Amino acid sequence: MPKRNHFISQLAHVELLSPKLEESVKFFREVLGMEESGRVGQSVYMRAWGEFFHHSLKITEAKTNGVGHISWRAESEEDLLDAVQYIENMGCGKGWIDGDLGHGRAYQYYSPDGHLEEIFWEVELAEIPDHLKSKWRSRPQKNPSRGASVRRLDHVTLWTSDVTRHTNFYKELGFKHNEGIVIPNGTEVGSLLAVSSLSHEIALFADFRKEHGQLNHLCFAVENRDQVLETADYVVDNGYRLEMKPFKHAVGEAFTTYAIEPGGNRIEIYGGSPLYFAPDYGPKMWKVEENPNDAWDEVNIFESAQFDSIKEKA
Amino acid sequence: MPKRNHFISQLAHVELLSPKLEESVKFFREVLGMEESGRVGQSVYMRAWGEFFHHSLKITEAKTNGVGHISWRAESEEDLLDAVQYIENMGCGKGWIDGDLGHGRAYQYYSPDGHLEEIFWEVELAEIPDHLKSKWRSRPQKNPSRGASVRRLDHVTLWTSDVTRHTNFYKELGFKHNEGIVIPNGTEVGSLLAVSSLSHEIALFADFRKEHGQLNHLCFAVENRDQVLETADYVVDNGYRLEMKPFKHAVGEAFTTYAIEPGGNRIEIYGGSPLYFAPDYGPKMWKVEENPNDAWDEVNIFESAQFDSIKEKA
Amino acid sequence: MPKRNHFISQLAHVELLSPKLEESVKFFREVLGMEESGRVGQSVYMRAWGEFFHHSLKITEAKTNGVGHISWRAESEEDLLDAVQYIENMGCGKGWIDGDLGHGRAYQYYSPDGHLEEIFWEVELAEIPDHLKSKWRSRPQKNPSRGASVRRLDHVTLWTSDVTRHTNFYKELGFKHNEGIVIPNGTEVGSLLAVSSLSHEIALFADFRKEHGQLNHLCFAVENRDQVLETADYVVDNGYRLEMKPFKHAVGEAFTTYAIEPGGNRIEIYGGSPLYFAPDYGPKMWKVEENPNDAWDEVNIFESAQFDSIKEKA
Amino acid sequence: MPKRNHFISQLAHVELLSPKLEESVKFFREVLGMEESGRVGQSVYMRAWGEFFHHSLKITEAKTNGVGHISWRAESEEDLLDAVQYIENMGCGKGWIDGDLGHGRAYQYYSPDGHLEEIFWEVELAEIPDHLKSKWRSRPQKNPSRGASVRRLDHVTLWTSDVTRHTNFYKELGFKHNEGIVIPNGTEVGSLLAVSSLSHEIALFADFRKEHGQLNHLCFAVENRDQVLETADYVVDNGYRLEMKPFKHAVGEAFTTYAIEPGGNRIEIYGGSPLYFAPDYGPKMWKVEENPNDAWDEVNIFESAQFDSIKEKA
Repeated sequence: MPKRNHFISQLAHVELLSPKLEESVKFFREVLGMEESGRVGQSVYMRAWGEFFHHSLKITEAKTNGVGHISWRAESEEDLLDAVQYIENMGCGKGWIDGDLGHGRAYQYYSPDGHLEEIFWEVELAEIPDHLKSKWRSRPQKNPSRGASVRRLDHVTLWTSDVTRHTNFYKELGFKHNEGIVIPNGTEVGSLLAVSSLSHEIALFADFRKEHGQLNHLCFAVENRDQVLETADYVVDNGYRLEMKPFKHAVGEAFTTYAIEPGGNRIEIYGGSPLYFAPDYGPKMWKVEENPNDAWDEVNIFESAQFDSIKEKA
Repeated sequence: MPKRNHFISQLAHVELLSPKLEESVKFFREVLGMEESGRVGQSVYMRAWGEFFHHSLKITEAKTNGVGHISWRAESEEDLLDAVQYIENMGCGKGWIDGDLGHGRAYQYYSPDGHLEEIFWEVELAEIPDHLKSKWRSRPQKNPSRGASVRRLDHVTLWTSDVTRHTNFYKELGFKHNEGIVIPNGTEVGSLLAVSSLSHEIALFADFRKEHGQLNHLCFAVENRDQVLETADYVVDNGYRLEMKPFKHAVGEAFTTYAIEPGGNRIEIYGGSPLYFAPDYGPKMWKVEENPNDAWDEVNIFESAQFDSIKEKA
Repeated sequence: MPKRNHFISQLAHVELLSPKLEESVKFFREVLGMEESGRVGQSVYMRAWGEFFHHSLKITEAKTNGVGHISWRAESEEDLLDAVQYIENMGCGKGWIDGDLGHGRAYQYYSPDGHLEEIFWEVELAEIPDHLKSKWRSRPQKNPSRGASVRRLDHVTLWTSDVTRHTNFYKELGFKHNEGIVIPNGTEVGSLLAVSSLSHEIALFADFRKEHGQLNHLCFAVENRDQVLETADYVVDNGYRLEMKPFKHAVGEAFTTYAIEPGGNRIEIYGGSPLYFAPDYGPKMWKVEENPNDAWDEVNIFESAQFDSIKEKA
Repeated sequence: MPKRNHFISQLAHVELLSPKLEESVKFFREVLGMEESGRVGQSVYMRAWGEFFHHSLKITEAKTNGVGHISWRAESEEDLLDAVQYIENMGCGKGWIDGDLGHGRAYQYYSPDGHLEEIFWEVELAEIPDHLKSKWRSRPQKNPSRGASVRRLDHVTLWTSDVTRHTNFYKELGFKHNEGIVIPNGTEVGSLLAVSSLSHEIALFADFRKEHGQLNHLCFAVENRDQVLETADYVVDNGYRLEMKPFKHAVGEAFTTYAIEPGGNRIEIYGGSPLYFAPDYGPKMWKVEENPNDAWDEVNIFESAQFDSIKEKA
């Protein structure tokens, strides 16, 4: 096992595109319990109550929904520069930007399918209004107990035209390949990769026809499974709709529920996933027939219409 | 912020010393729900149900209780060799051993106070008997639902004669200094350090008189706070005794309970601690007067007799 | 509102019929965590760990599955005699039996569809073996932490050819009619009735063709929703199958999961249902279109094949 | 066992006295998550989100804190009249009042120590503003997720000069005597009594010197133990103080925490208590030495100053 790159310390933020900016902001504020921490032009910046950084979500008004960019924080300034050199050698670099609200200069690059990503080091901490400040140093602010009251950003899941190629791309950047899903002919159709002890910060699903755009979903974490159940109550009793009611993934073992935010992006709220520390933990390869999406059920999500391009290949 | 060393991937196992080997084994099996995975000489090896490695606990018969050694797994074979070179330069190396049941060759070294530690790469996975094998690839075995049914080893807490010096020692090895505790004269009396996104894999408490030996406690994690409560029921209703009934730490935010195992070692069972990804998250420095040990109470643990040596210095 | 009868204090036990007696006993012992408390002829008596009475479940070997009888405990000896007089006046009495293992003489009677029920007063408390005795007087025995580890019997749900008629039958016996379900033509197809502050001890579903036999399901309670989730893990990882994975009922608000025990009877495990104290709380009448079975979903259980006889009537 | 009276269906509401009316109202609104449902003169009426009645708490401005009156709802109009006749025969009746905001005429009477109580039948349901109405018929309104977000009133605990005499008083009114506490000389110093399947709606503690006034505490229920823990976080992080941090009672088995509201009344928030259906469940008699207050600890609450009058008698 070769030495692993350690450029990246965490998934810092994700930019979502929304055709209904204010309705999306309201959803993340009311349903997920997040705070607004800034606005610039057509973008609103938000953070979860347990996050110390300026924001973990940027929502930008756009004609269609989807992901704007995915932003990773480096391990240090020196690691940032090492990463840039490495990425430039990989040939997928786009170049430096001066930074954005909440963080300093960032180097942008593309995944093989063209998802825009960036890496930066200098970060601004959230300024917490006095009435929200917590008594405890481990909390940047009080728990607002609003809707799901998510504690932090967890991961982003992307559609890709070639799961194996993208898996290798992230592994080069230092990600651990923890779990994968294959169809009977051996083609990889799902992949979970992590930079930290989380189950995954990035997951990949196959869309061989490239018909879904780039974002499968964005996930925020609550503190336990009971909070996922309370979230379901909140969502349904406040006139929103669950896309998938609470259930348990077999991959990653998280207990989870999904909703579509008003801009059309799929949002996962989840809790209770175990941690994986070993760099050689994976890849645990699941057969699609083992129903890795649902630990308790015999219904296979890959039978659903969104995975039609997989069935053609199987 | 300088580039951080990434030699270590995780806390792999801890060796406890016990004057009552079989009673200790019974405690970890019945009360914590762990499995025995091997015996050599006067040592018994155990693992929690969620752990893939051969063992996370080695209990060795000895005249007194305490910690035998603390064992870290490297990030790769190459990282192991880098670590050894680094440790030798630090001047605290002891030398290679051939390995032990469950892992390959390991390099041993001493902390400033002489705690014995080691680092290794090659590890043996647990052999799970057929009747315990789990249906899910993310679990090495079924949850046995026995006692606390801890999922994994979490951290070890040591007594040290010089918290600041030991903090620096672990920082050199790549640990993040997440939280600390100071007394009014500015002396550091507590410290929490992590190699992963856990709150801490190692914590340090000051014992300026060196009267407590080396081990404060060893901690295993359950999956949520309700399981801590169920553990308390189990412990008390089965004739064991809680040293501290369930409460919440302010440092690290974990919900926790403590018991003394029959060999005399303090064991913590805890759940619900948040994760910390930023290398510059800390150190969050708590004043001892802020009661960092107990989030909800006004009783200061540092007032208790075990911290007498701190009071002299304050 | 007329004065309500208070003959009955609780649902005491239910007799299930099973073509596979020993496999059924094993299921209730291993999956639900119940204890065997006696055997007579082809019957095995079982109790949950939180129950003080001799048993809450009697399983009797039979050619087909189903319910043998449903047994209610009176409020006192005098109430028992009052109940008998009342039932005899209703014209549905069958007569006294001398009692059974675990209780004294009982008066048996029939529901309009012929479900056999009984009422008794004298009860025998469970004899708890020393090693299972609890330290706490509020617990007859220690929590065994085995499978679902259900705390107590909760309710029984029956198929009936005439929900309204059966609802009135139970109301005469003193049950509160808490909730009901109607189809668009106004016909009642579901009914929940309680003698205590539980949501219901008896529920009724319409089977106009009388094709299902008499038992829809038998339900046992765990202490909270997280224990329902742990139950699902246990069931699936031990080779059993969930008939319905965890979800939340809108009626009664319980969080629930279902399995079929080896004898073919449907068993519900549930937790987190609120209490209803007011005698005029109900009936809260739900339209079948409001999906009273599933609080979070838009799939209507009454669309499933088992409710075909309802669709004909709608 | 004689036939038990069934006049009473539930604890309907309690009137607290507060020298700081608006601060008390703010506490119940913000910390317990209750709603204001009316004001008359110096009284404010409040209800928990899960309650259908107009109110479960009346707070009246007064020079000192304490309990104004305790209000029980009858089982029916006829039961109300039967109760009145019965109470008049007991010789403790005070007489009818015309009713109050939220309920019809009520008959008032005194406990042996002079606690004012009342019983009524006609009740007004809460008018829920449209934006708070729940989708589910089992909920009068949405869960506001504000502070503890208590679901309902649970019980009231009183100081009495003669526990045995008061226990008999409530038994005459139909209460089940579930649990009791005795000191070594056999004197009863604690008692728990229930009209429903709750552990208790009324509890009694001995104050032989009558120095504490009449109210020990008022208790509201949340849905599970984790919500008690979240309540503790909320209370402490919002500048209030816990009188007792979360722990588990042995009597009644509830998991609990206590705070003092600004008016000086002790408020308990608790969850997870089991149900008791048998009229002859109790009395389970605990010795004070068995520490019935705290299931996990060896500290005896009866050693504290508030129980000095007990120690004199022991």
